[in-house]
Amino acid sequence: MGNHVLDIFMAPKSVAVIGVTRKTGKGSYNPIECMQWFGYEGEIYPVNPFADEILGLKCYRDIKEVERPVDLAVIAAPRERVPGIVEDCAAMGIQGAIVVPQGFSDADATGKALQERLSDISRQNGIRILGPNTLGVLNAFSGFTSSFMYLKREKTPVGVICQSGVFFVGAAVLTGMIGKGIDVANGCDIDFADCLEYFGDDDETQVIVVHMEGMVGGSRFMDVARRLALRKPVITYKTARTRSGAVAAASHSGSMAGTYAIYEAAFCQAGLVPASTPEALTDFTKAFLHLPLMRGKRVGLITLTGAGGIIAADSLEECGLRVARLSEDTVLGLKELSPDWMPIQNPMDIWPALMKHGMKHVYELTLRSMLKDPGVDGVICIAIAPDLPENEFLDTTGVIREVASSQQEKPVVAWLYGPNQSAASRTIEQGGHVLAFPSLPRATEALAALYRRHKFLQESV
Amino acid sequence: MGNHVLDIFMAPKSVAVIGVTRKTGKGSYNPIECMQWFGYEGEIYPVNPFADEILGLKCYRDIKEVERPVDLAVIAAPRERVPGIVEDCAAMGIQGAIVVPQGFSDADATGKALQERLSDISRQNGIRILGPNTLGVLNAFSGFTSSFMYLKREKTPVGVICQSGVFFVGAAVLTGMIGKGIDVANGCDIDFADCLEYFGDDDETQVIVVHMEGMVGGSRFMDVARRLALRKPVITYKTARTRSGAVAAASHSGSMAGTYAIYEAAFCQAGLVPASTPEALTDFTKAFLHLPLMRGKRVGLITLTGAGGIIAADSLEECGLRVARLSEDTVLGLKELSPDWMPIQNPMDIWPALMKHGMKHVYELTLRSMLKDPGVDGVICIAIAPDLPENEFLDTTGVIREVASSQQEKPVVAWLYGPNQSAASRTIEQGGHVLAFPSLPRATEALAALYRRHKFLQESV
Repeated sequence: MGNHVLDIFMAPKSVAVIGVTRKTGKGSYNPIECMQWFGYEGEIYPVNPFADEILGLKCYRDIKEVERPVDLAVIAAPRERVPGIVEDCAAMGIQGAIVVPQGFSDADATGKALQERLSDISRQNGIRILGPNTLGVLNAFSGFTSSFMYLKREKTPVGVICQSGVFFVGAAVLTGMIGKGIDVANGCDIDFADCLEYFGDDDETQVIVVHMEGMVGGSRFMDVARRLALRKPVITYKTARTRSGAVAAASHSGSMAGTYAIYEAAFCQAGLVPASTPEALTDFTKAFLHLPLMRGKRVGLITLTGAGGIIAADSLEECGLRVARLSEDTVLGLKELSPDWMPIQNPMDIWPALMKHGMKHVYELTLRSMLKDPGVDGVICIAIAPDLPENEFLDTTGVIREVASSQQEKPVVAWLYGPNQSAASRTIEQGGHVLAFPSLPRATEALAALYRRHKFLQESV
Repeated sequence: MGNHVLDIFMAPKSVAVIGVTRKTGKGSYNPIECMQWFGYEGEIYPVNPFADEILGLKCYRDIKEVERPVDLAVIAAPRERVPGIVEDCAAMGIQGAIVVPQGFSDADATGKALQERLSDISRQNGIRILGPNTLGVLNAFSGFTSSFMYLKREKTPVGVICQSGVFFVGAAVLTGMIGKGIDVANGCDIDFADCLEYFGDDDETQVIVVHMEGMVGGSRFMDVARRLALRKPVITYKTARTRSGAVAAASHSGSMAGTYAIYEAAFCQAGLVPASTPEALTDFTKAFLHLPLMRGKRVGLITLTGAGGIIAADSLEECGLRVARLSEDTVLGLKELSPDWMPIQNPMDIWPALMKHGMKHVYELTLRSMLKDPGVDGVICIAIAPDLPENEFLDTTGVIREVASSQQEKPVVAWLYGPNQSAASRTIEQGGHVLAFPSLPRATEALAALYRRHKFLQESV
């Protein structure tokens, strides 16, 4: 066991699942089944007064009957029974409880009162509580999850703090990118700051993602965040931004939403990375995981389509970056490839050149030149993702990947257009040196995030 | 032959391809090969002084040697030879020419002068010219294309007017959604207004998409657009919005870009539908193709995740729509499914209900109730896209599709979260009654476009 309060939640040696259903199989939402499936290897103690055995494990009528040491309780009982159960757990010396059911501050006056009691019990008896209204935790490294839905186990160095299990199930958002997750949910005790501290000290986590509806304990969170931002990128996705969203949040996590503009300003100032859309959340996470930071604003654009170059130029300017001015060496090196009338400039439209000299040769030479150019801080590659075998010779994913992997100084991103975008994007991302984005505005936003983080770190020295 | 100048470009009975390469096969960019592959059944006359036969067709040394009637010339010769060729074509009575090569107003002073000559020839000799610097046209209905890249032939009732072949190759943008396309490119003669008129009268086109870098003949375009907008949705995607984009555009289509804000205001006023991102362009096109307009601002939200409901509520407010207030009938009908403490409201979080009564039953009942509610103008379905067989029982794509197809009054859109999003989205879209979007902000933007068009038409009566 480590030093942080959340260690016992993230990697318990033994777990009691109190109020676990006797049902198993499809549609039973049985957390023990999901735990076993996920690969948990610690001790599991099912507690249910109506069963002798669940999933091959001896079942206890009451938590008090479990005579072996229990690190963590996962509580799935009806809401009115929860406070009593938590008290029992505390009396037995169990240090942590995950309270899964809904119906607390997310619901009526009774629920709110019940949640107050949980907070009191935690304060008085020392037991730490995650939830209520939570899917709990997942930890692909230790192999533990409290989820009652099947989750994939992927050891990605991304730690997610959220107020909804939807982030574990893996929204389009963050699919396949959660190594560890903590669902703060109604947050009667364990809060954002606790989780942030945990991930800050965690060597298995490189990038931290925070989904937040509303915040309790904001000043401590900001203190922790400010320190942490110097060490790891912390991407925030704040919802309940509008009046409508805030009303909805009141009956979800029971949060008070606050004014979005204030959150955003505070987050930026603390060096956090606010994502304004779910797409940005995914894109920034990928970018920080795989690409070097961008040390300046000047971006090189290689394109097979003038229209693409223009969209990229617009997008760069719209997110505070710049179209790089190519150095004379670069211009000279590229000049002989193109017809005389072709201006050699950025965006660099290589279509006329490749008609003469072949796609791969021209792409390789142009990308190498741009990456060597001291006036270029990062490159966007616009290329075709052909699906017809007849067009396969147009495919440059291999060349781009190869050139990008020959250096680790400057970020290289791609927009692959055409009907085979998804597959080509997966191909070019193999090895982790190039990232492909589904549109040019998304590619440039990701570069802007890499640049802003560089600037923040530089100014914090 | 029809009545519009562009008929001869879109469905020629005979085509001469002047300056066609003798090379064939991979990487040859041979337009005749692509034409045949696309399924063109008219007469093709290759013109190349160095060949007797190309792709099984008799080859002519000069266009003047072709003694059969020719509807359209596709010109692929070096730029300095183009004006002479066009004059020859005009002298032979050929009514239209597609000028493919680059190097005109997109390039140097020589190129600009060459383009001026083309404009003059067109005015003086009556021959109509598309281009230069164009991929030309594609028409999946007639089976004709002038493209030198292989294109898929899909008879979608979407007409695209663009300033770049990238839209034909089918960017992530519009993949599989182009039935007809015209690449205006440098626009020495045929312009946006001509193309708009063509698609306006074309029964095979239901939705019109315009990609524009800069505009020539703006006032005629706006006149045509204003009339047309009453009959068909016209979605515009204006690039070269920023200074950087405008600089890039000057050496692409040679366009003067103008101020984006002015374009957008003018487009909106004329009843066009500006898309501010490539994603919006795709989403709006899909929405107008498949969904009914939305007759009010009030949107119902069905969700399995409180967090999703909040993001949707935020997004609705951010794009000018509203979270619907459910009628008493709807509330009463849904009340018994959920636990007592659960507020029955919109967003409607059905998770507690489905834990008791099963996913499909609860989803079906809720969606039916919302669609019947006179206070609801459209519905967003938030549902899971499971990939693990263990979670398959969570799949509701079938139910949502079925309920949505039982009515055609109100638009139903979906956000399917989870690792299987793409496949589940394709499944739910089968039959064309529900559209799935990769994120909630994108789903709400599409509904907002459907609402704004309803409002425009209503106010224009």
